[in-house]
Amino acid sequence: MQTLAAASLSPADITRLMVALAVLLGISRLLGELARRFKQPAVLGEILAGVLLGPTVLGYFSPEALEWLFPVSAAQPGRIALDGFVVISATLLLLVVGLEVDLSTVRRQGKATAYVSLMGVALPFILGFGLAYGIPEMLGAGPRGQAAPLPFAIFVGIALSITALPVIAKVLMDLNLAKSDLGMLIISSAMLNDLVGWIGFAVVLALLPSDTLGAAPMSVVTTITLTLIFLAVMITLGRWLCHKTLPYIQSRWSWPGGVLAFVSVVALGCAAITESLGIHSIFGAFIAGVAIGDSPRLRERTRETIHQFVTNFFAPIFFASIGLRINFISNFDPLAVALVLAVAFLGKSGGCYLGAKMAGMNRRESLATAFGMTCQGAVGIILGQMAFKAGLIGEGLLVAVVIMALTTSLFSGPAMQAVLKLKTQLRLADIVTDRHILIHMKSVTPSKAIAELAVRGAELTGLAPDLITQTALDREKAMRTGLPDGLAVPHARLTGLKKPCMVIGRSVPGIDFDAQDGRPAHLVCLLLTPESDHDAQIDLLSLFARTFQDAGIRQGALAAESTTEFRAELNLAGTDA
Amino acid sequence: MQTLAAASLSPADITRLMVALAVLLGISRLLGELARRFKQPAVLGEILAGVLLGPTVLGYFSPEALEWLFPVSAAQPGRIALDGFVVISATLLLLVVGLEVDLSTVRRQGKATAYVSLMGVALPFILGFGLAYGIPEMLGAGPRGQAAPLPFAIFVGIALSITALPVIAKVLMDLNLAKSDLGMLIISSAMLNDLVGWIGFAVVLALLPSDTLGAAPMSVVTTITLTLIFLAVMITLGRWLCHKTLPYIQSRWSWPGGVLAFVSVVALGCAAITESLGIHSIFGAFIAGVAIGDSPRLRERTRETIHQFVTNFFAPIFFASIGLRINFISNFDPLAVALVLAVAFLGKSGGCYLGAKMAGMNRRESLATAFGMTCQGAVGIILGQMAFKAGLIGEGLLVAVVIMALTTSLFSGPAMQAVLKLKTQLRLADIVTDRHILIHMKSVTPSKAIAELAVRGAELTGLAPDLITQTALDREKAMRTGLPDGLAVPHARLTGLKKPCMVIGRSVPGIDFDAQDGRPAHLVCLLLTPESDHDAQIDLLSLFARTFQDAGIRQGALAAESTTEFRAELNLAGTDA
Repeated sequence: MQTLAAASLSPADITRLMVALAVLLGISRLLGELARRFKQPAVLGEILAGVLLGPTVLGYFSPEALEWLFPVSAAQPGRIALDGFVVISATLLLLVVGLEVDLSTVRRQGKATAYVSLMGVALPFILGFGLAYGIPEMLGAGPRGQAAPLPFAIFVGIALSITALPVIAKVLMDLNLAKSDLGMLIISSAMLNDLVGWIGFAVVLALLPSDTLGAAPMSVVTTITLTLIFLAVMITLGRWLCHKTLPYIQSRWSWPGGVLAFVSVVALGCAAITESLGIHSIFGAFIAGVAIGDSPRLRERTRETIHQFVTNFFAPIFFASIGLRINFISNFDPLAVALVLAVAFLGKSGGCYLGAKMAGMNRRESLATAFGMTCQGAVGIILGQMAFKAGLIGEGLLVAVVIMALTTSLFSGPAMQAVLKLKTQLRLADIVTDRHILIHMKSVTPSKAIAELAVRGAELTGLAPDLITQTALDREKAMRTGLPDGLAVPHARLTGLKKPCMVIGRSVPGIDFDAQDGRPAHLVCLLLTPESDHDAQIDLLSLFARTFQDAGIRQGALAAESTTEFRAELNLAGTDA
Repeated sequence: MQTLAAASLSPADITRLMVALAVLLGISRLLGELARRFKQPAVLGEILAGVLLGPTVLGYFSPEALEWLFPVSAAQPGRIALDGFVVISATLLLLVVGLEVDLSTVRRQGKATAYVSLMGVALPFILGFGLAYGIPEMLGAGPRGQAAPLPFAIFVGIALSITALPVIAKVLMDLNLAKSDLGMLIISSAMLNDLVGWIGFAVVLALLPSDTLGAAPMSVVTTITLTLIFLAVMITLGRWLCHKTLPYIQSRWSWPGGVLAFVSVVALGCAAITESLGIHSIFGAFIAGVAIGDSPRLRERTRETIHQFVTNFFAPIFFASIGLRINFISNFDPLAVALVLAVAFLGKSGGCYLGAKMAGMNRRESLATAFGMTCQGAVGIILGQMAFKAGLIGEGLLVAVVIMALTTSLFSGPAMQAVLKLKTQLRLADIVTDRHILIHMKSVTPSKAIAELAVRGAELTGLAPDLITQTALDREKAMRTGLPDGLAVPHARLTGLKKPCMVIGRSVPGIDFDAQDGRPAHLVCLLLTPESDHDAQIDLLSLFARTFQDAGIRQGALAAESTTEFRAELNLAGTDA
């Protein structure tokens, strides 16, 4: 009787679900911001949030709180709802990753992709397989793994050779590399890699004595054939259909709602297809993203809306969920962890480095590719959990795989950053603190304004205020420093100054700095740079001018009621807004 | 053992979840677009999608498909995950509704709000209570309802007097009325109304013999006290804290990710609080939205990103879910439906009309308010389900309540539209079809171009092409029709023409229409208007000029490769983009 369908979630379950989501999102965002503060990818903090909120830390201090928030029982409705939400989050995340993929770049890098993914799979697989087949007891096979050494060894080989597409994609986005050639190479190699990994896992399951997974899995040949057919259809016919449908929807449906819904429906549909084929749902969503995102008809704003919501709402919840189920301390087996880490790291990075070199890339790019591909996050964990459930591997090995996945995830971003010597584009918001801002300048003439700013400059640099004032005034006489649009940049190059410093003053009535457009300066930036550093002055001057070139930000800064609000305006500049 | 935590969702469950979400989102979006086509609010189509996909239609044709997609068993993991997602959707929807509330408007309309919500609750409550207390058997009380006539009667009174905040808010947004004074009056009255309703329901549960709901509910006094405290704290201290925190987050966290996460966390937290107090989670999210949205510090783009994603992704899924569980045919009790509909409709609209008149509103506004408040959607259904579970009401009455809720939801939008004689702002995209566009004009002179457009104009209007050409050319001699930015609007007023018509031609090389800025016209619009209709020509001319005033749309239209793409550009204009 349909009407009788009872509510599946009690108010207590719903409360729990809401609290769990709020905590996951809140803590992962907090740690993500902290990671950013230390110039690390946000995803690092998001994954650590899960370790904090899981059995490792929260469970140690308050097992009751952990059990209430994230119950162990797989039949607990609040937990099922949360798990469902996490699966949807991962699916939408991969959709966004797919939307970023530019097939023409992938095609252009076909050779490099083939080398990197082939070598990146072969080497760790061989090492892992050999280790597991040779000394299964050292890694800790599960009951069925001991009985079936071949599937066990194949599984270990796969687990150690798979790249975590969602994590590395997020790392690349965080580092602003996702659309670069290097980023595309890593993403397409990881994608090939994932495909091989999932198919390999299907083979392992088929090799196991049947009924280990409850239901009989689809035959391996069927899974592989259907997956390849799905892939081929989506990249050709599916892509073509999306290209044809998008302009229609964009011209006749409400905008951007119509496109947003269309993209989501295609992604969910493809996710269902791959999930039912025995390949995880995230793979289908990724392919859907590739098929849709390649269309020049997809508007940037649609992409942006999906991107913002997914990376800021769904993704942190997914990443935090990774560490939620595992106690990293009690199941810690140092030998297994060391072996797994060594094989995964050396095998993967070594293989990919070799592959990249074989494809003709230079040393630095090859190293960056290798470090990027080393990232083995969520997918390894999902596979590990499934293998553990199937009795293929023991707890110690599961924890080792997860620790390996987390470590390599944490390693990839910083390592790539170091190898590529990435300098993140400097933003005023990153160097200006409350102390660098005078929100209400009292002065009404340029010389008084310079003296007023110099006092703060002296506090910040330890130099004498008079020296600063005099040097800046001398310079002012030689050349006017008023810029158009109400800006002025008096400056002083000082011996004895260690590093550059800037003080920004605001005057709502304005101060006449003799600008070309005749308008008074409302924002005056006193630049102090070391005598010897020729570039610093130009860099900071142009940074200041560039930031306030935007009329919206200029007006916002003028209207700000506090230093904090002033900085909020600076924070807007240079975002992809 | 934490590590042992099994996966709570099998691949089959995940497949089901993905398919269910895709189907719900896809069909509700399709029907939503269809509703828009018929000038109805999109929410109407979204609710109907659920009726189609539920037992009423899909279940009739294929019970197996229904059971697979939306299983009845409350223990089915796929269903639990879907239900959880729906709860989260409803919560986020109410957050968005709350973000739209402007407290100063609410305060300004305090008197009207008090009258409307008081009368709007009192009249239907008295009617419903009287009916249920007098003739419970005609409405169909449940087993416990028969044993406890007083709580039963109170419940019926409440169910018939509650306004559906999410539905009416969406209707108001669809009609572009959400931020108007009238919209604010309706939203604030509905909000008061909801508050009273939930508290009243808590009273009913407390009056019932205990243990009907499994766990002992919180004492009524506690629920009411805590709810009012929560409300007071959020509107004062919570609001102040949000105002203080927002600039901090906007100045120091990544943007807009930081704010998005902050807003979501606050909403989920408040949802958890109200849910645990026995008031539904959506109420807390709504209050959170009010507290945050009132801040002038919240940037329009953050609001917009949340709004787009929630109204286009989460909301359709929620609205479609309403009709999913109920077979409207087999449980149809004509008498109960008629009684409930009559009382709900007459009581609610009558009460609100009286209240609005008492507050000094004019007849038309009062009627619009009454029709808006009549909307009794989701909340009534949620209450109904809880009451049914508690054995308070029978199936027939539940179906009657749901039908009443759906009917009034469907009625509100069109009725308000009719009463207010709303003319939706005309957009070029709404009147231009493929036949009105010549994407590749061959002509290179104004007179040839006019003749070329006149041929299509003749096909569309049935007039002779020569007549059109000649009239337009005569007009052209009297006054040049070239506008700046590459536009031209030759026009002809014709006797015998029934209604206005426009043909838009595109010339990539450009045609010299002697515009003031000396630039050739790339977009030429031939306007044909009836001789007698003085306004039409001006209206259409300004519509054309306004649409292509946007440089982005102009360039997009010039770059469009087909008529469909050209229309996609038109569709961008006049959206809140």
